[in-house]
Amino acid sequence: MNVIGLCGSLRGQSFNRMLLQLAGQCLQAAASVVEHDWSAIPPFNADLMAKGMPSSVRALREGIRSADAVLIATPEYNFSIPGMLKNALDWVSRGSDQPLLHKPVAILSASTGPLGGARVQYDLRKVLLFTNAAVLSKPEVFVGQAADKFDDHGKCTDQATREFVQAQMHAFLEYIRWQQVQRMARATV
Amino acid sequence: MNVIGLCGSLRGQSFNRMLLQLAGQCLQAAASVVEHDWSAIPPFNADLMAKGMPSSVRALREGIRSADAVLIATPEYNFSIPGMLKNALDWVSRGSDQPLLHKPVAILSASTGPLGGARVQYDLRKVLLFTNAAVLSKPEVFVGQAADKFDDHGKCTDQATREFVQAQMHAFLEYIRWQQVQRMARATV
Amino acid sequence: MNVIGLCGSLRGQSFNRMLLQLAGQCLQAAASVVEHDWSAIPPFNADLMAKGMPSSVRALREGIRSADAVLIATPEYNFSIPGMLKNALDWVSRGSDQPLLHKPVAILSASTGPLGGARVQYDLRKVLLFTNAAVLSKPEVFVGQAADKFDDHGKCTDQATREFVQAQMHAFLEYIRWQQVQRMARATV
Amino acid sequence: MNVIGLCGSLRGQSFNRMLLQLAGQCLQAAASVVEHDWSAIPPFNADLMAKGMPSSVRALREGIRSADAVLIATPEYNFSIPGMLKNALDWVSRGSDQPLLHKPVAILSASTGPLGGARVQYDLRKVLLFTNAAVLSKPEVFVGQAADKFDDHGKCTDQATREFVQAQMHAFLEYIRWQQVQRMARATV
Repeated sequence: MNVIGLCGSLRGQSFNRMLLQLAGQCLQAAASVVEHDWSAIPPFNADLMAKGMPSSVRALREGIRSADAVLIATPEYNFSIPGMLKNALDWVSRGSDQPLLHKPVAILSASTGPLGGARVQYDLRKVLLFTNAAVLSKPEVFVGQAADKFDDHGKCTDQATREFVQAQMHAFLEYIRWQQVQRMARATV
Repeated sequence: MNVIGLCGSLRGQSFNRMLLQLAGQCLQAAASVVEHDWSAIPPFNADLMAKGMPSSVRALREGIRSADAVLIATPEYNFSIPGMLKNALDWVSRGSDQPLLHKPVAILSASTGPLGGARVQYDLRKVLLFTNAAVLSKPEVFVGQAADKFDDHGKCTDQATREFVQAQMHAFLEYIRWQQVQRMARATV
Repeated sequence: MNVIGLCGSLRGQSFNRMLLQLAGQCLQAAASVVEHDWSAIPPFNADLMAKGMPSSVRALREGIRSADAVLIATPEYNFSIPGMLKNALDWVSRGSDQPLLHKPVAILSASTGPLGGARVQYDLRKVLLFTNAAVLSKPEVFVGQAADKFDDHGKCTDQATREFVQAQMHAFLEYIRWQQVQRMARATV
Repeated sequence: MNVIGLCGSLRGQSFNRMLLQLAGQCLQAAASVVEHDWSAIPPFNADLMAKGMPSSVRALREGIRSADAVLIATPEYNFSIPGMLKNALDWVSRGSDQPLLHKPVAILSASTGPLGGARVQYDLRKVLLFTNAAVLSKPEVFVGQAADKFDDHGKCTDQATREFVQAQMHAFLEYIRWQQVQRMARATV
């Protein structure tokens, strides 16, 4: 099974990238998680889209389409979704062949403050509702005080965090499989 | 009085740009509204910011700082804030000299569907709360079915829309003046 | 198949009750929708709950538990969920034997204004996320200008509204069946 | 100056009631905070309202109208506003003589979990926006792990919490005074 990972932060030492890697380790017996670098995606502009989807957008769309599932690990900026991650989703959401349709998605967030992104995830769920993606409900994963939970090599040093992520990935695997059964059934009918 | 206008859409024939211009006409006896082109602002990245604010970001920050107020007219993308507008705000919100602090802001939205952006404005208010901007509460302006309300030259042809915007700008002017009185009082103390 | 219906409004001639009935007609070949009268549920109070769930609360919990699915048709009060509907859900959400867990839910809203409840549904989805109910994503149903769409006998006179509700109920039936397959599979493992 | 306090929880030993009392202590040199018991307010029902506002509703409306400001301390139920508090606000929001109009409001929340109500406050702000109340923006007060921060007599034992509340009340007093200046000016014009 292959899972595409999207990190909501562009900085090199992002805690959310570390969180994505931790999720990948939790899944590794069943799936490989590959982070997709979406940083070259241009600003969404309907005039530009009229000339065709840019290659970086097509790459992300194909990456999502060909993946069995999507993992999004994102910080919270100003109580909501990082603009650039939203911009990438704005491109992905367009067109009749929308790759997020019925695609299983799980959300995680890490922050250096105490709340761990308690506000961004609901906005992100609302955006994904628009695309009709199949978003895992529970368990939710919020990693607060992230700087205390990952070492300099990006390794998670907090057992509780590992267990939260493990539990979510366990639920996510079951969820992905059900979505696959449904997709096959839809194709059969 | 000078007001900086931010349009949430980058396309040329944006209905939200037309709405911004309509708001400018409503204000013209008291203030001039100049749209600020923020399209050159790069993706927010804390690593990049560590090297200093990019010039396009500094230009937007200075534009906001030196303005008496901010007008934001924005479409709704995927039930929320256009990613690039959010990216611009993500840059503006950083630093200890945050230009939106106590700055009067009014929000309008237009869409080609019936709801006129009924979902984006609350997310935008939440983001602006983070910056501690002074956001006008009421009246709210939602322009649904925008394609029927502006002509090919961008002129508003709908009397009800004109009156809604006029009423909001009337309230906004009073609101800006009160914020100015408070700012002066703060400076005095 | 039996579906429990919850109307967010307590007034007799509620448009949302009419909408619930319309949904019931759309489902009638496959399921019967019975509205549950939750109006006797007392104010949620943890001290009261400590003495045991009140009988009206138990009735609602049992009604949900024994139903195959839940339909909620609700107005929007003050941009969000009617307080009393939320109070009923506050009671239902408590306890380890929470009846909404994995229960299929569909949401509709009607209003006399143009937006049809565009703001209440996202708040309601967030609340239902807490309970880990299985909430249908799309299609969404918003009935604006409801007074023009139902006659004095509560019958829907608007063909477009009928089709929107029909499409949602069609999707809901498929959704309920999948949730049932999953529940059976869970019970088997 | 007199401030009306609303506690979002009905249980006797509510941490939010303790938080309200702490806020009252912080204000005591300038204002007295009196909690208003709204527990007798019936379920909102437009048919009932058509017969006149119930006396418990009139008492709350008059309490708000005659107060200089409103303090709301509320728990988070199911990621949102407690249903009964919302029901009280649903009643208050009705009628042309709406008492929350331009009324200064500050929001605090306490929870026994780590997030301190990080999700309820934005929903409450959206509801209060409908009423056009004047809601203090910052500083926000979230009291997580409340059981560790108040003793058996309801006294706050956590110095950081005291300082957060003190800072908010300091800002609130200044905010109330400005709203009063504006109200007087409006009355003069």
